[in-house]
Formats: sequence, C-alpha cells, structure tokens
Amino acid sequence: MSDAKKTISRVYLDWAAATPLLPAAYAAMEPYLLGGFGNPSAIHAEGQQARVAVEAARATIASAVQVRPEYVTVTSGGTEGNNLAIFGLVESLSKGNPSTGLVGRAYESMTVITTKIEHPSVGEALVALAARGVQVRYVQVTEAGKIDLEHLRTLLDASVVLVSTALINSEIGTIQPTRAIHKILHTAEVKYDTNIYLHLDAAQAPLWLNCQFDALGADLVTLDAAKFCGPKGVGLLIRSKRTHLAPAVFGGGQESGLRPGTENVAGIVGAARALEAAQANWRARADQVRAVRDEAIEHILTMFPKGNPSEVLLNGAVGVDRVANNINISIPGLDTEFAAVVLDKHGFAVSTKSACSGAGSGASTVVQETTKDPARASATLRITLGPDNTIEQLQSLTGVLKKHVMQMSGY
Amino acid sequence: MSDAKKTISRVYLDWAAATPLLPAAYAAMEPYLLGGFGNPSAIHAEGQQARVAVEAARATIASAVQVRPEYVTVTSGGTEGNNLAIFGLVESLSKGNPSTGLVGRAYESMTVITTKIEHPSVGEALVALAARGVQVRYVQVTEAGKIDLEHLRTLLDASVVLVSTALINSEIGTIQPTRAIHKILHTAEVKYDTNIYLHLDAAQAPLWLNCQFDALGADLVTLDAAKFCGPKGVGLLIRSKRTHLAPAVFGGGQESGLRPGTENVAGIVGAARALEAAQANWRARADQVRAVRDEAIEHILTMFPKGNPSEVLLNGAVGVDRVANNINISIPGLDTEFAAVVLDKHGFAVSTKSACSGAGSGASTVVQETTKDPARASATLRITLGPDNTIEQLQSLTGVLKKHVMQMSGY
Repeated sequence: MSDAKKTISRVYLDWAAATPLLPAAYAAMEPYLLGGFGNPSAIHAEGQQARVAVEAARATIASAVQVRPEYVTVTSGGTEGNNLAIFGLVESLSKGNPSTGLVGRAYESMTVITTKIEHPSVGEALVALAARGVQVRYVQVTEAGKIDLEHLRTLLDASVVLVSTALINSEIGTIQPTRAIHKILHTAEVKYDTNIYLHLDAAQAPLWLNCQFDALGADLVTLDAAKFCGPKGVGLLIRSKRTHLAPAVFGGGQESGLRPGTENVAGIVGAARALEAAQANWRARADQVRAVRDEAIEHILTMFPKGNPSEVLLNGAVGVDRVANNINISIPGLDTEFAAVVLDKHGFAVSTKSACSGAGSGASTVVQETTKDPARASATLRITLGPDNTIEQLQSLTGVLKKHVMQMSGY
Repeated sequence: MSDAKKTISRVYLDWAAATPLLPAAYAAMEPYLLGGFGNPSAIHAEGQQARVAVEAARATIASAVQVRPEYVTVTSGGTEGNNLAIFGLVESLSKGNPSTGLVGRAYESMTVITTKIEHPSVGEALVALAARGVQVRYVQVTEAGKIDLEHLRTLLDASVVLVSTALINSEIGTIQPTRAIHKILHTAEVKYDTNIYLHLDAAQAPLWLNCQFDALGADLVTLDAAKFCGPKGVGLLIRSKRTHLAPAVFGGGQESGLRPGTENVAGIVGAARALEAAQANWRARADQVRAVRDEAIEHILTMFPKGNPSEVLLNGAVGVDRVANNINISIPGLDTEFAAVVLDKHGFAVSTKSACSGAGSGASTVVQETTKDPARASATLRITLGPDNTIEQLQSLTGVLKKHVMQMSGY
C-alpha cells in the first residue's frame, strides 16, 4: 500500500464476503493457539482438555441453533458444508441402509431441485452430482429472487429427494420463504410417501436472522464461521434427526465418522463463541443496520434520479424479504468493476458480486437470472453493511460514486 | 483438572499426535486474526491484502519443499490431503482429458497398491475407493515396517496407477525407502508404458527429515501443519508437474479450482512460517532428539531386562530407518491403555497408538501387521519426543512405568 493510501480511513462494506473476527471469539481461541495444543483424540490430559473444549464448543453451537449436539458437524467452511450436505445425503440414499432394510436408490432415480441463483458451492456441487446421473431441476425465481412456489409444486414427484437453496442469497440478499417451502415439501412427502429433504445454505444468516433450527423448517443447514465474525476455515453443518449422511472424506472417527481429521480446536472454539454472540442479539443488530441501509438506499436513489447522470436500479427484494445489511444496485452501462476500484481508492470496500463467483470478470448470474437483463447483470455493485457503518459513510460513498458516474458519462 | 494435577509439571511426549504452535507462526497469524480479515477473492484493498498474504505463504511453502507455488494446494489437514491425493488422482484418470486425448479409465481397470499399516486417512480412503471398483493390493511389510521391495515388484503390472504409503509410519516411526520405491516404479512404468504415481503421507516428516520434493521421488506429498508446529486445520498437498487431480469439493475457483472455499488466511500464513522453520534446521533438530531418544531406548531396555518384571520389546526399525523422535514399545500382558493413564497422572503425556486410530480401545494394527503377535499388538506404548525433551524426563518416565509394571505383576 502506498503512503497516500494509508492515510485514508477505510469504510468496510463487504460483510457478505468476510467479517472481522469478534474480539471475544479471538479471546476464546487464544488459549488453544498459545497453550492447549493437544490432539482431542489423545488419552492424556492435554488431549482431554482439547476434547472438552471441542465438545463444549459443540454444545454452545447446538444451543445457539437449538439442536442436540450430535446433529452439529464441524467442517472447514461453508463450501465443504454445502458439498457434504448435498453429496452426503444423496450418497447415503444411494447406499441405502442394510441394517434398517432401507434399499439403496440408483442415482438416476433421484432428483434434486435448486435454483439458478445459488452460490457456486451449491451450484457447482449439483453440476457434479448431475454428472453422476442424478437429475437436477431448476425452480424459477421471481424478479425479487424468491423461489416461485407454484413452479416448485409442479416440479415435485416421487423422485425428488432434496431441495437445496440459500436461505439468504449472497448477492442480492433475498430471504427465501422457508416455512412455505417446508409446507409444500411436506404435502408432497405425504402424497408420494417419500422424504424430501430441505437444505439451506444459511451462510449469510446468523448476524441478521433467527437461525433456530426448527424455525427454519430445514433438514440441513450450512453455516460458515467466517461470515458471522468467527474464524476463517470453520463451517458448521446442522442436520435434523431424520437426516443421515454418508461421509465424503475417510479417515479416523472424528465428527462421528462423518468428517474425519484432527479437529481444529481453536477454530471450533472461536466459531462457537461467535455464533453465540451473533444469535444473541441478531434482531437488535438487524433493526439498527436496516435503518441505516434503508436510508442509504433512499439516498442513493435520490442522488441518481432516472437518467441523470445514469439510472440506478435496486436488485432484489424490498421490505422483509431482504436481509437487513444488503444493498445491491445496477448502474446499466457503467463498468462497475472499475467503479469498485475507484471506490476502493477512496477508502470504500465494496464488491460487484459474490467473492466466490470470481472477483474479476463477468456478469452476475444472480441478477441475470432474476432480471433477465444483461445490461443490468453486468453492472452490479454489492454493498453489504456491518453494525458500525453509518449513514454518513454511505452518503459519502454515494457522492464518490456519483462523481465517478458523471465523469464516465462525460458530464 | 484438579488442583493436585495442576501442580505436576507436564512432560509432553506425544509429538506424533500434535505439536505446539511455533511462536513465530502465531506471530505471523495474529495480524490476520486481529486485523486483516478480507476475503482473498475480493477486489478491494482488504481482499488484496489477504490475497497477497495467501500467495506469499504459498511461495514460502513452495520454497521450503522446492517446488513451484502452483503445485501447492492448501487443504484443511492431513486427512483431507490424503483423500484428495487418492481420490483426486483416480478420479482424474477415470475422467480422462478430452482436450489432450487422454482416454478415461474404468475404475475396474485401475489398481492401487498400499500397505496394511497406513494411517486411517489412507487406509479408509482406499477401502472406499475399492467400493467404487478400483482394485487395492496390499504390499507386505517387514517386521521393521518397511515395504518389501521384492513383493512390491511382483504386484506391479499395467493396471497399477498409484502406490500410496506413509513416508514415516505414525505409530512405529519407520521411514520408507522412497528412492528405492521410486526406482522400482519407474522401471515398471517403462516396462508397461504407463504412469505409476507415488503418494507419500509425509505428515510425520517436516520436523525430522528433508522434505525437498525431488529428494522424495514422489508425485504427491501430504503434509499437516498441526504436526510441524503450525496451526490445526491446515494441510498441504504438493504434487509433481505430471500429476493432475480432479477436485473432490465443488464451488468457487480457489486453489485453482482444486479445493474451493474461502482461504483460511491466518492458518495458511501460520503453516508457511512453521514449515519454513521446521525444514530450516531439521537435521540439527533430528540429531539432537535422536541422541536423547537412543539413550532413552537403551535405558528402557536396561530397566526392563527380559522377563523381569516384564518383557519390553521395541517395535519398528533400528538405526537410520527410524524417525529421530519415535519410541514404540510393547509390554506383552500389560494393559498399556491403563499404563498411559497412570503415566498421565504422573505428568507424562504418551499414547498407545495413533490418535486417529482411536484413543480408546483395540490393538495396534500396525504392530499386529509387522510382528504378527497379538500380545505385542495389544500392549503398545508410543512415546514421541520433541526438541525440548531430556533424558532425565525419559528416565523419570521409565521409573514410573517400571513401578507400575511391578505393581501390576504383583511384585
């Protein structure tokens, strides 16, 4: 970084991509980084101390989402969690269970339903699953990014084993109506005498929504500590009692054999503390940030009146169906990659789409799928707030953005 | 822990299971835990700072093992690394490569060779691979735990695609003759006009052996930061130029698409610093520890003369084929699980076998396979030293052990 850059105070507005580690989470991790390094599978005091820490953390996580600890599996992050949920379920159904008489199902006899606006860790996993012979059906989404429930009903039949979607879309912030989806799936389960599992990638949720497991109506919920002020490299997969998974990695018996490998003790402890804090006051946090966010959206739309200098369009839902901290706009015709770089030089960290979709190039498939407008899809800016961001910061960002747009427009 | 326990100074002798985090590695990690939390895939300064850290760490790792950075893939640990090496290679061969004209091979047409003394993350992965139709052949090992090279020759044919073994056995510390294995495989490659890849689980190596990639003669080398004074939850998979892997997890394009998911920035940075330090003076460290270890073995054998009160047998190799810090003994007839607990109460942290093989119960399959002696296999103690352990500590341990054995024997 140049000296000039260092003097600019930074305004971080990319909370959907990464969050700072909560000081309390760091404090909880420190003893296991600096001191207690035992292998939790070892029988001596050092090992047992680590085991106690891991299981206490699991209990904290379980309590935060209101499940029993045995339904919490720790992974290395959201991507592994989504992959384990999808492949783990389908492989388990494929294998069947000789001890309970459950007959294995051929890949070709199974269908998974998803949308075309999922994070790559769901979307690409399902492409790989399709290559094994499983049928993948795509349910339509509305312009706001919500699953079309009528269309979902038409896609359901006895072959459907899984519906996988993000609880909150990572780009446009749309919250799916999971209770309504659950109800539709349950009706189909009764009709077809089958189990249709619901998997939610809830990576964007813990800071802003109630993640109590029963409230979500899902069988599988993926969380990523790096998105709720926990450490990077730790994910959580929560499952319902009826859900059985086959492991995707083989080794020692850790995580009940479902995810072997020596436990990342410090990481798990930090994730637990962060999740507890995230869920403890999600509502107050969301209310506060939503107020700033709503004022900011109004300000942006006011500053960019239609056609002067350039149109600004809000992508995603309005109101309760939008997560509290998300602003996603398109400025058709503008090179928003460049705009993001200009904003960065002025101290504002924003993104154009999801980091995992490639920071570099290409249009947003999420905005393309929801708006069917290539000009809009190729000119997105994602601004995701944290609890400390202020309306003044967002007004300042808007000023820089307007100046840039005017320069680009030759005003 | 009780207050009484706290007053006993601890002697940690389970370095094969877990190692303390190097202070310099912790210092390197701290800025990415406390401050720089950006997502390396983001385009703004916070993201780019994280990207620079990840790629600088990859360059440090590459330099420590003398490969180009693009051949270093970061995983969540040794277990994931071993699984990715095995499944990644076989899946890649199975798929073929349409762009180069390489035809995909049916699972049934491929053979993998391994031993029966591998860590579960190799052994169980190969059981799962066999379930897909790949043939798995087990090469015999000597009583010292070394691969029987003559037997290996007889197992090679045009179907063999992979040989997978630990560079250093995690229980008995035997070092495999990888150059000799490489030579035998190369001869077979020429004879059968095929590629036979060599995978080494080198998790136990970096503190005690030269891990320069070319010196190992392998195509795939798995490392685990938790075993070389780096953080838990970080593994490294190094591959040769000719080795292509298929990903086992699907998502964003991180780690060249081979291992997607937001990078564990602090973890990778810590692993790099620890590996650099481990390899910088492995020889001096090994020489020093070997001297203590050899004196300790002699002391133990002297203190337990044959039959009085109980026989002590050294498992594994003697001399240069044994890693510097490993002592593995059997005391036939003794409940060594209980002995390990008694030693723990006296302040000594040791294990009976590898932590991942289950801290709890059961005989050592490694010692069973090498000695064919169930009494010996069910009475193992593994004592693995670190650089700070002294002969006095090991003499003290031997005293406690002898007292315990005499009590158990009714002396």
